[in-house]
Amino acid sequence: MNTLVDGRPDQAVPADDRGLLFGEHVFETIAFWHGQAPLWSGHMQRLARGAEVLGVMLPDPAQLARDCRILLQACPDCSAVIRITITAGSGGRGYWPVAQPRSRRIVQRRPWPSDLEDQRRSGLRAIFSAHRLADEGVLAGLKHGNRLLQTLAARECARAGADEAVLLDSAGRLAEAVSSNLVLVGADGIATPPHPAVAGVGLAWLREELASELAESSVFPAELDAVSELLVINSIGGIRPVTQLGRFRFEAGPVFRRLHTLWQSKLF
Amino acid sequence: MNTLVDGRPDQAVPADDRGLLFGEHVFETIAFWHGQAPLWSGHMQRLARGAEVLGVMLPDPAQLARDCRILLQACPDCSAVIRITITAGSGGRGYWPVAQPRSRRIVQRRPWPSDLEDQRRSGLRAIFSAHRLADEGVLAGLKHGNRLLQTLAARECARAGADEAVLLDSAGRLAEAVSSNLVLVGADGIATPPHPAVAGVGLAWLREELASELAESSVFPAELDAVSELLVINSIGGIRPVTQLGRFRFEAGPVFRRLHTLWQSKLF
Repeated sequence: MNTLVDGRPDQAVPADDRGLLFGEHVFETIAFWHGQAPLWSGHMQRLARGAEVLGVMLPDPAQLARDCRILLQACPDCSAVIRITITAGSGGRGYWPVAQPRSRRIVQRRPWPSDLEDQRRSGLRAIFSAHRLADEGVLAGLKHGNRLLQTLAARECARAGADEAVLLDSAGRLAEAVSSNLVLVGADGIATPPHPAVAGVGLAWLREELASELAESSVFPAELDAVSELLVINSIGGIRPVTQLGRFRFEAGPVFRRLHTLWQSKLF
Repeated sequence: MNTLVDGRPDQAVPADDRGLLFGEHVFETIAFWHGQAPLWSGHMQRLARGAEVLGVMLPDPAQLARDCRILLQACPDCSAVIRITITAGSGGRGYWPVAQPRSRRIVQRRPWPSDLEDQRRSGLRAIFSAHRLADEGVLAGLKHGNRLLQTLAARECARAGADEAVLLDSAGRLAEAVSSNLVLVGADGIATPPHPAVAGVGLAWLREELASELAESSVFPAELDAVSELLVINSIGGIRPVTQLGRFRFEAGPVFRRLHTLWQSKLF
């Protein structure tokens, strides 16, 4: 058993679910390590923000935690990645909502990715995606179900045999990677792009840890020669160094080592 | 039975379908009238364009037509709306695609909407949506599964007790309605906005019928005083007049009557 739908073991979701029909859902992908999810509260906060914007009823977080525990019991060491999806449920006519909406919760367990430590050791080779992130208005920063741009960029990445793809914003500045946020190290210190499409829970943790030491900075690709380290961060993979992005090369340097040690010591 | 999944009666879709996880699918909502879908080829063309951009394998249209026939046999007069959804299928790690993707086809039957003729007679009351359509790059015009903006606008519309919501583009010009394209009638003739988020199959039919008589024109709300008729068009509802949009009032005038008659005579 690796999926619960509304708390019951089920591998399928009704075909009229609005999450399927329109991508009308919010989701979180949460790292569990020996039964613990160190970033749980950050995930729950983002889920609540997204559910409110979409108008989707959020289940009680205690119910979600119980679903996770049930799925984790089946893992030998209770370490896995759990995706929680809250959809707008079934019903409505086309885009129009039902009068009394009932959200649906889908909780899915996946094995811990096997290539993260290799990537951390050898560094990621990344490409620039040809796709640009558009301004998403009220949806900006939310982890919602409309992720076609990410799947398109992941396909580019797979075709190029790369590990990651970096997306630029509509003005042509570095915004984020397919599945992680960016951290840049230059002469002025440590910075992250100001308006990523997904406000990462890993990045939020780093903001809190580094406080004013982490600046916000918009960087054009042409300015990357002045960047010594380029890192990706997300709540599953932690902090990993990018050693190549297009024609640019970076080192897995002292800031990477420091932040990775911080991540390990504080969260695990 | 009102749903076929990969040709088999089924009311559910695997929970790991990428159409659910990421909105990674294309769809068409097709009007069948006494067993016939007059705009079938337009729907198939748009579906093929979308599937190619998303990298989703398109099933043989003959297979899709057979699915539709099976579902229609259960209707007394073979009149219904059928939604065809082609998803990227199951598998892959997060956003990253599977090496050998297998698309999934979901074909769903719904009753013909009951309020279209009332709306055609009395005209639609529409609001301006607070949401702006962003530039979607390669996804522009496609009927893809990332439709959160439409569901948000439909919720605004429902809250306001209106029939439709009109979305503006990022520059603030009229772009389209939640579920239909716009046609405006002014002193210069008949026009439609140049870059709708969804390139409507009904609108494509109208373009062909009116040829050069249908211009493309970007109109700001402030210019609506010079518009005498505002119409919505989609392949299910045909052509309906908007009689109210925010503070603006329009008549169900001679162009509406002419185009509606054309629609009826050519397609039904």
